[in-house]
Amino acid sequence: MIKLHHLNKSRSKRIIWLLEELGLDYQIVSYQRDSVTFLAPPELKAVHPLGKSPVIEDDDLVITESGAITEYLIEKHASGQLSPAKGTQDFVEYSQWMHFAESSAILPLLLKMFVDKDGCETNFLAGYADAETVKVVSYFDQSLQDKRYLVADKLTGADIMMSFIVEILANNNTLDSFPNIAAYAQQLGTHTAFHKADEIEASY
Amino acid sequence: MIKLHHLNKSRSKRIIWLLEELGLDYQIVSYQRDSVTFLAPPELKAVHPLGKSPVIEDDDLVITESGAITEYLIEKHASGQLSPAKGTQDFVEYSQWMHFAESSAILPLLLKMFVDKDGCETNFLAGYADAETVKVVSYFDQSLQDKRYLVADKLTGADIMMSFIVEILANNNTLDSFPNIAAYAQQLGTHTAFHKADEIEASY
Repeated sequence: MIKLHHLNKSRSKRIIWLLEELGLDYQIVSYQRDSVTFLAPPELKAVHPLGKSPVIEDDDLVITESGAITEYLIEKHASGQLSPAKGTQDFVEYSQWMHFAESSAILPLLLKMFVDKDGCETNFLAGYADAETVKVVSYFDQSLQDKRYLVADKLTGADIMMSFIVEILANNNTLDSFPNIAAYAQQLGTHTAFHKADEIEASY
Repeated sequence: MIKLHHLNKSRSKRIIWLLEELGLDYQIVSYQRDSVTFLAPPELKAVHPLGKSPVIEDDDLVITESGAITEYLIEKHASGQLSPAKGTQDFVEYSQWMHFAESSAILPLLLKMFVDKDGCETNFLAGYADAETVKVVSYFDQSLQDKRYLVADKLTGADIMMSFIVEILANNNTLDSFPNIAAYAQQLGTHTAFHKADEIEASY
């Protein structure tokens, strides 16, 4: 059975969504962040040297990186669902969003979060993080114009990957400035497995 | 013909390496960073709204994100070379490194670079960036123990993606502390196309 090493309030919730969406049997091993430092507990290092979450175990494989986990589960268990056909333009767009979620999209959001949390008086860094965040999120918003999903008018792994970015924006109360992302958040909310993942996450 | 929008001193050099490794016909459109701010020039925004590099154009597709570009070029043009067979354990590891390069690996390095460049007195951020950098780079180093390449004992797209991380570490003069990465840097240097990319990059 697939084992998901799950850290609360982390990128791991979307893997629960994916596992639920695929109707797979899986077991959650849960970890709690330190209530003061918000850091992951040292026990996660026994699972993988980086001490991060999500990590899944399946068939003697230990897999890290949300993008790699998502691609692996979809390739192995989705029977052609949740991704466009390979070799198509849709697949190229899909692949871009899969990478975008954990690189271009998350970087300025994390930078801003770190600078805010640190509370230091930066010379340019706070302003740079703000400007980059607006650029990246505006691009995401414009890409969703007149669209229900990011690619091929159906739910794919790209949406599941990007749902973490949507969640950060919602938690920051910034969705009002990005109407297409706000509508997209509603659309993601129409999926039963999305809510199931929310409930499961809340129980840890 | 493939067109590569190339920014000097950027993640784009590894795409030149890949194009050379595949022996493809391609054209470089070059852009220069601002000499004071080190930012990409506004002209790149005409190519893609994010104003980043690398971007490639091929068959009416405009593709961003280094990982997506690398996967696309290998899938379309490598005839099974430069990646392990799909469905194998090697392929899962390959996929992890493809994502790792632009997410877990680069984040602490960029964070450290930004904080250093800003020069502000942080409360915890500089220390956190240092600690995370050591953790991530040590993991990379240990993964290379007794190995010539990251996966399957041959050059793959994962090595080409991770070569940018090796370059940052070399530029920071930190390779001495990571003997396996230092040996790996030598190994990457045995590839003719790697040097060709260096020369081409230096000419812009």
